[in-house]
Amino acid sequence: MRPSNNMYSYFNNEFLPIEQTFVHISDLATQRGYGIFDFFKVVNGKPLFIKEYLDRFYYSADTMRLPVSLTRTELKEVITQLINRNGQADAGIKMILTGGYSPDGYEIAKPNLIVSQHPLTLPGPAVLEKGIKVITYEYVRDIPHVKTINYIMGIWLQQKVKEHQAADVLYHMNGQVSEFPRCNIFIVNGQNEVLTPASRVLHGITRKNILKLSGKPFVVREAEVGLEDVYAANEVFLTSTTKRILPIIQVDDKVIGSGKPGPVSLAILDKMLEMELE
Amino acid sequence: MRPSNNMYSYFNNEFLPIEQTFVHISDLATQRGYGIFDFFKVVNGKPLFIKEYLDRFYYSADTMRLPVSLTRTELKEVITQLINRNGQADAGIKMILTGGYSPDGYEIAKPNLIVSQHPLTLPGPAVLEKGIKVITYEYVRDIPHVKTINYIMGIWLQQKVKEHQAADVLYHMNGQVSEFPRCNIFIVNGQNEVLTPASRVLHGITRKNILKLSGKPFVVREAEVGLEDVYAANEVFLTSTTKRILPIIQVDDKVIGSGKPGPVSLAILDKMLEMELE
Repeated sequence: MRPSNNMYSYFNNEFLPIEQTFVHISDLATQRGYGIFDFFKVVNGKPLFIKEYLDRFYYSADTMRLPVSLTRTELKEVITQLINRNGQADAGIKMILTGGYSPDGYEIAKPNLIVSQHPLTLPGPAVLEKGIKVITYEYVRDIPHVKTINYIMGIWLQQKVKEHQAADVLYHMNGQVSEFPRCNIFIVNGQNEVLTPASRVLHGITRKNILKLSGKPFVVREAEVGLEDVYAANEVFLTSTTKRILPIIQVDDKVIGSGKPGPVSLAILDKMLEMELE
Repeated sequence: MRPSNNMYSYFNNEFLPIEQTFVHISDLATQRGYGIFDFFKVVNGKPLFIKEYLDRFYYSADTMRLPVSLTRTELKEVITQLINRNGQADAGIKMILTGGYSPDGYEIAKPNLIVSQHPLTLPGPAVLEKGIKVITYEYVRDIPHVKTINYIMGIWLQQKVKEHQAADVLYHMNGQVSEFPRCNIFIVNGQNEVLTPASRVLHGITRKNILKLSGKPFVVREAEVGLEDVYAANEVFLTSTTKRILPIIQVDDKVIGSGKPGPVSLAILDKMLEMELE
């Protein structure tokens, strides 16, 4: 993240100017890529769906055996203080919990907690009107239900994504799709059902909110989703905290549906925007 | 790594006391676990097999699209200066190359290069006489031929390893074994051939040196090695820079051979010790 002017971050009980926030090289993130994180939006000074993001953050920490030094109440207070101190009413907040300063460079130590605020750019009308192209790659993330900091594959694939003039890469394994490096996938099938892969995925908060919309009026549910189902879908879209909903109009060399963002995707985006205003 | 007294590290053109060597939180290792590294031994002030380790370091860097700011000659000079400055004639040297200070927390930036020296403890006679127990786990590392810093799975499995009073965990997939998180595996089969998995492994320098020993007098070669081959082997051992050769006397609940370190493993260890003295 680019250090912004006069922005503060929180690091182990201290608020520090973000450009002066450093971790020692013995940290298990630097040594071994070991850590977890989460990221949520702040709109009008208010964190969105904060309960869900904190649930996931503590779940990731617990699963990866990283104790969080702050209680949920204390962490929420830190977030409030950071927002007030930075005076950025609309932004993203990232919480990182690393494996700590490990004596032997392998054993988990006392985790380091970093909370930082960053400018946020949401997709504009142009991309929503046009949709995006994605490619596919055979891969499943390690421990996919946990938001670890391991993005080795996603970042390494960025060159391939660019070479194909695509916007992202969809992971699949044995014919079943799972997710994008930082986003979930939904398809709208021939029966106008909205489906998202049930397994080997991170349980995105936007994904969860869309699943809650089921019956209003679309059926939305978890299912096994094959790569062939994606190619044959009426509509495909991805979801994430920073992107909300982004229509996908091409997967590999297959044009999806009419080749334009579809009505179900855009209707769900409208519902999401309503939820954010609630 | 524990900051030792008066030890220096090298960080982007500077020698700094190791306890004062920090990376900014925007580094792609902290943000996304993105980086590569390598590690070699220094004995009597001389780096062992330095050509091979530098070959692999530059190969890893290149594969992960991380340009190294120093030429091989310059990096060797940094290593020599670090050894001289620290005055530790016997130690390990770790070189880490991270994804750099990324403006958006995802795109690769100018890599940060960290070189640090650490005390080294090699396995003593007790463990060599007794051998170790290992467990198994179904997993293949991402981009296994590259020495990335991604040890999410290996570190996460440490608790399971301890629960089973084991010393390490052997990865396998679809019945074929590959490697340990930080070590290669060799087996001695019924024909007294010494085999090591051919694919989905990091090409360890110790592994490479043992393959070179083929015909003196044992046949040593790369092969597909099944989990059943491991269970049924006469001898099993692991290899790494810090451990050299460690005999394995139990894999899961299967006792290997006589349940004691075997003659081939110990003969190869002797050869390795000779190579280190050359």
